[in-house]
Amino acid sequence: MRAHGACSTSMVVLLVALAWAFPTRGDEGMWLFNNLPKKLLKEKYNFEADEQWARHLMLASVRFNSGGSASFISSNGLVLTNHHVAADTLYKLSTAEKNLAEDGYVARTLDEELPAPDLELNQLVEIVDVTDQVNAAVTPDMEPAEAASARQAAMARIEKESLQATGLRSDVITLYGGARFHLYRYKRYTDVRLVWAPEAKAAFFGGDADNFEYPRYCLDVTMFRVYEDGKPAQIEHFLQVNPDGAEEGDLLFVSGNPGRTQRLLTVAALKYQRDHRLPRILDFLRRKEILLQQYALDGPEQRRRAQDDLFGIQNSRKAYGGMLAGLQDPRFLEKKERYEKRLQQAANTDEPWLAIEEATRRRIDLQNRTATLRSRVYGIAETLVLMAQEDRRPSEERLREFRDSNRASLEQQLFSPAPLYADLERTQLADEIARFMELRGGDAPLVKKVLGGLSPRQRATEAIAGTQLFDVEQRRRLAAGGIEAIEQADDPLIVLARILNPEYRELRQIDEALDEQERQAYAKIAEAKFKAEGESVYPDATFTLRLAFGVVKGYQEDGQWIKPHTTIGGAFEHEAAHGKSGEWVLPESWHRAREQGRLNLDTPLNFVCTADIIGGNSGSPVVDRDGRLVGVIFDGNIHSLTADFYYSEEQARAIAVHVAAVLETLENVYEAGHLREEMGK
Amino acid sequence: MRAHGACSTSMVVLLVALAWAFPTRGDEGMWLFNNLPKKLLKEKYNFEADEQWARHLMLASVRFNSGGSASFISSNGLVLTNHHVAADTLYKLSTAEKNLAEDGYVARTLDEELPAPDLELNQLVEIVDVTDQVNAAVTPDMEPAEAASARQAAMARIEKESLQATGLRSDVITLYGGARFHLYRYKRYTDVRLVWAPEAKAAFFGGDADNFEYPRYCLDVTMFRVYEDGKPAQIEHFLQVNPDGAEEGDLLFVSGNPGRTQRLLTVAALKYQRDHRLPRILDFLRRKEILLQQYALDGPEQRRRAQDDLFGIQNSRKAYGGMLAGLQDPRFLEKKERYEKRLQQAANTDEPWLAIEEATRRRIDLQNRTATLRSRVYGIAETLVLMAQEDRRPSEERLREFRDSNRASLEQQLFSPAPLYADLERTQLADEIARFMELRGGDAPLVKKVLGGLSPRQRATEAIAGTQLFDVEQRRRLAAGGIEAIEQADDPLIVLARILNPEYRELRQIDEALDEQERQAYAKIAEAKFKAEGESVYPDATFTLRLAFGVVKGYQEDGQWIKPHTTIGGAFEHEAAHGKSGEWVLPESWHRAREQGRLNLDTPLNFVCTADIIGGNSGSPVVDRDGRLVGVIFDGNIHSLTADFYYSEEQARAIAVHVAAVLETLENVYEAGHLREEMGK
Repeated sequence: MRAHGACSTSMVVLLVALAWAFPTRGDEGMWLFNNLPKKLLKEKYNFEADEQWARHLMLASVRFNSGGSASFISSNGLVLTNHHVAADTLYKLSTAEKNLAEDGYVARTLDEELPAPDLELNQLVEIVDVTDQVNAAVTPDMEPAEAASARQAAMARIEKESLQATGLRSDVITLYGGARFHLYRYKRYTDVRLVWAPEAKAAFFGGDADNFEYPRYCLDVTMFRVYEDGKPAQIEHFLQVNPDGAEEGDLLFVSGNPGRTQRLLTVAALKYQRDHRLPRILDFLRRKEILLQQYALDGPEQRRRAQDDLFGIQNSRKAYGGMLAGLQDPRFLEKKERYEKRLQQAANTDEPWLAIEEATRRRIDLQNRTATLRSRVYGIAETLVLMAQEDRRPSEERLREFRDSNRASLEQQLFSPAPLYADLERTQLADEIARFMELRGGDAPLVKKVLGGLSPRQRATEAIAGTQLFDVEQRRRLAAGGIEAIEQADDPLIVLARILNPEYRELRQIDEALDEQERQAYAKIAEAKFKAEGESVYPDATFTLRLAFGVVKGYQEDGQWIKPHTTIGGAFEHEAAHGKSGEWVLPESWHRAREQGRLNLDTPLNFVCTADIIGGNSGSPVVDRDGRLVGVIFDGNIHSLTADFYYSEEQARAIAVHVAAVLETLENVYEAGHLREEMGK
Repeated sequence: MRAHGACSTSMVVLLVALAWAFPTRGDEGMWLFNNLPKKLLKEKYNFEADEQWARHLMLASVRFNSGGSASFISSNGLVLTNHHVAADTLYKLSTAEKNLAEDGYVARTLDEELPAPDLELNQLVEIVDVTDQVNAAVTPDMEPAEAASARQAAMARIEKESLQATGLRSDVITLYGGARFHLYRYKRYTDVRLVWAPEAKAAFFGGDADNFEYPRYCLDVTMFRVYEDGKPAQIEHFLQVNPDGAEEGDLLFVSGNPGRTQRLLTVAALKYQRDHRLPRILDFLRRKEILLQQYALDGPEQRRRAQDDLFGIQNSRKAYGGMLAGLQDPRFLEKKERYEKRLQQAANTDEPWLAIEEATRRRIDLQNRTATLRSRVYGIAETLVLMAQEDRRPSEERLREFRDSNRASLEQQLFSPAPLYADLERTQLADEIARFMELRGGDAPLVKKVLGGLSPRQRATEAIAGTQLFDVEQRRRLAAGGIEAIEQADDPLIVLARILNPEYRELRQIDEALDEQERQAYAKIAEAKFKAEGESVYPDATFTLRLAFGVVKGYQEDGQWIKPHTTIGGAFEHEAAHGKSGEWVLPESWHRAREQGRLNLDTPLNFVCTADIIGGNSGSPVVDRDGRLVGVIFDGNIHSLTADFYYSEEQARAIAVHVAAVLETLENVYEAGHLREEMGK
């Protein structure tokens, strides 16, 4: 499971992270580290989540800023995550001759560890409640647009002051739909090197067909190492390993960064998701999937270039499909409607619900209005234009991503030496211009300006042939030249971004005002829930560190009991059952190890538990009561795909790689006993 | 190239076949056999298209009622068409154990020829102009809906009388957008047997990637035989073969059934296609392509079951993509706008153009209103319900497909023993119910009725598990029981069709009134064109027999000259260039023949010519000046995909299998010299 990263920028902008929906049940919850469900854990599992235990786990947890989770597993900076979280880097490190994503990699020495071109890893070190400071900036008489600006400015000021005072990355996070604001301080690691990756055939065994399914047999792990001053970083808080853990019935914890849930959404907002937003996202994803499939038919090198995006899109398509299917079941919305009515009665008002409904109607009206093009290289042009404009303002008045506190992360992305492929960019840009034309209609003046009298394909061909933005130095020069350089540039992609810029800004402003309108309404709904249900609740996911818990447990499906564990031997059986064809082919290295009798086939490979997770949790460490590593989350089963909107314990399960399989294959398949030793085993 | 058969029923209903757009140029034209461009052929090519020549070619031409063209090639009823026209039958004749579509088939004797479950072949024997009779039924004071009924009734009467008088299938065809009506009389062949099909690897070599591309290397042919009274039909008019024909520069003729062109469309109608209809069709096709791909991942048998639909959908997706790309080039519409203004000035009115524009606006308003579900087995239920209702009326008042004159063809489809697969039908029905929900919104009362409180997937599972319509005898019983049986049936699919029926009928009526409004407007536009440009023009394609002409000629592409011919040896080179991988693997039989030195590698395999063709022309014979067969049309190149809207001679080409390759492979690959002999060679 990947973070749902494939929706369009305007869709991302439309998203507000929102809080819970129903009263918490069972093992539900993605809990804040500064508000853990201590009472619940004590009562249900007789577990004491003390300060020291929690702080150690928090500091041993790692966030991949590109969208994923991980953990420190040695004092020398070794980091364990998923292969599919690492995939973006693996593709960037690959060439036509050497495909690391496909074939895997083992560094035998520190010298062989390969620097990632643009990874940023974050270690959360502190959380501060700044709700009062943020709210003080907003007065009740402000219009939504004005309130949004004031609130953003307050958040920016807090972030900037924190950065200056501590040197740490500082992000103010909106929680409970706007009822709370917390400042998160992160240590940043940007010298990150690849240590070990298994082959795609092991990591993504079963491919798109098995994705989100269970039983499962994937070694979906990869190791990096963080460096400081050119040397392996010395890490105080790292996870010890327990290869005998995760027995059936065991209580386990997941510490990671769930990307986004929407459990507080009102019925009107859910219907907007069901009837408008999700069907459109799915149309978009299927379009891109076919586009990339067609591009990949051109040859093996094209297939390699398309693969990373294609995996991501297939993954999102399946995830959104599951979400939509959940919303299309009338029984869920009926329940939600009844709950909403009760809450309105308790609150003695339906005013915030009506405000959401009105915002939703406006979002429907806006849904064909887009002013961005989803191509990597166009994205660079768009960022350069926006950055030059924003930099004329004080930091706190800028669009969020252009503030001083985010500048280092932004520049790492903008000036990344990761390869861009002109033919792939041309294909995607042509399709994006065509899609823009379809959304807005061929007669729209803005469309005519974008086309400049040419067809979408010709326009894209011309722009890609003429741009110099593939060259990182040229990006730096343009960025250094500020607004004048941008306004005078005749680079065709900069010209295109200038054409779309006024409309982009207008839409962004409308979106942010709608976000604020919703934020204020959801804050009221959240307060109503606090009143009705008490304060010990968790907020919707916000791609920040959370603790989930659950037990190792099988489930019933189509009249069959699915056991919680699979083994390495089971992977070979699964391969045989599919005639060793298609996506069900294990790597040569596994077959060799088995034939030579080196592999213990009884080693547990994957397991499921009831913890409440979602995209972004990929790579999260799974630990036991003693905080020892027993597994790495990499997926949820098909029943878990409704987790955006509600948690269920009946069939929904989180899927993890068992740490025993990591140790077993390191030693006996990948001849990397030195890494096993570094993990203390 | 297949006929664009994958659009939804309501889309099919929305389509009116319409006439030409620009003055005819070059080798443009899909000419009526009763109005051939004799003067043009004489002047440009010094060719006399005399009565005898034309009548022989007409009678030797065959229409596959399922959507394709063919020809008689022996006195014993041998019929030559494309493998992809035959594919539907090949799949229906296949089982899990024996995959004829994939592996091919050769009947060594008449006894081994395999009866197709539901093919209907048509031989056009006569054309009668009935314009005056049809128009007499419509008076100027009628509302569009009334006029549509009156016109339909007049057409039905003419068809019924003709059927009774001649025993021939009788169809009144609307030509020139409604300016002319001709009665077509066909001899029907329904005992059709499979004689020879090559492997899919030979017929569809290069797969989806090479589809609509050139150079090309496909043996896209299949042979059937028509029977009468259990014996091979005796055919007077069949084509002699000329294996030395189709030299560069040769004048050739194509006699086939182009499905539909839309060259008369007004600018408003073209913009509707560009901004609404085509983007929606493409979303639909991509959705179904992904759905079938996912279904096919379940295993080899699922792959086999999905293959026929999947090929068709991929083909349509590529075709519609090319059409949309053509319309998205602003230069085409600019030219068209200038032309339209000139025509309006010459006609001294813009009234019919405004009428089209108004109809177009109404079509946009209606585009989310659908009341059908695209699943084969649901289609059977829908037809049974409609048929029972329609049969209470006199034939001429019924919906077109339920009239007496069409009953034999309808029943052949409805009671076809062709296999239906419950798992595939369930997958498709679930997706169709979900799509219906997305289009109309989850709160629509009709959607709630369809769901009956369940999710789309559960509703489909229940309906497919409970229906008896997989059983042909049950269909016959229900049909025999008439309206009472239908109204009392508790078969869940019949229940579903009854729920949707009132809305379906209402939409159908609205569509037909809009069709009539457009027909009357286009008839006026056609008359304006007759006046401005003379009467020697061809009407838009209507899936009826037409004659196209052109010369064998290469073309320029990306600075390279593409030669008009490829050879069998070139196919092996093309395979090697793609590393003998993916879709570029020739069948074992070809490799064996080459290794044993039996194959003449210089034999021409495919060639291109400038003839004006479109989907539906697949399988059309290509003949020389003497009416001898030199090839079989099977595709157009990527540049020809705009042919729906305009003809171009610069790069657009029709692609044919050369008859020499048919003879060569029959003899030396398929050990079917007896068929070669039957062709007189």
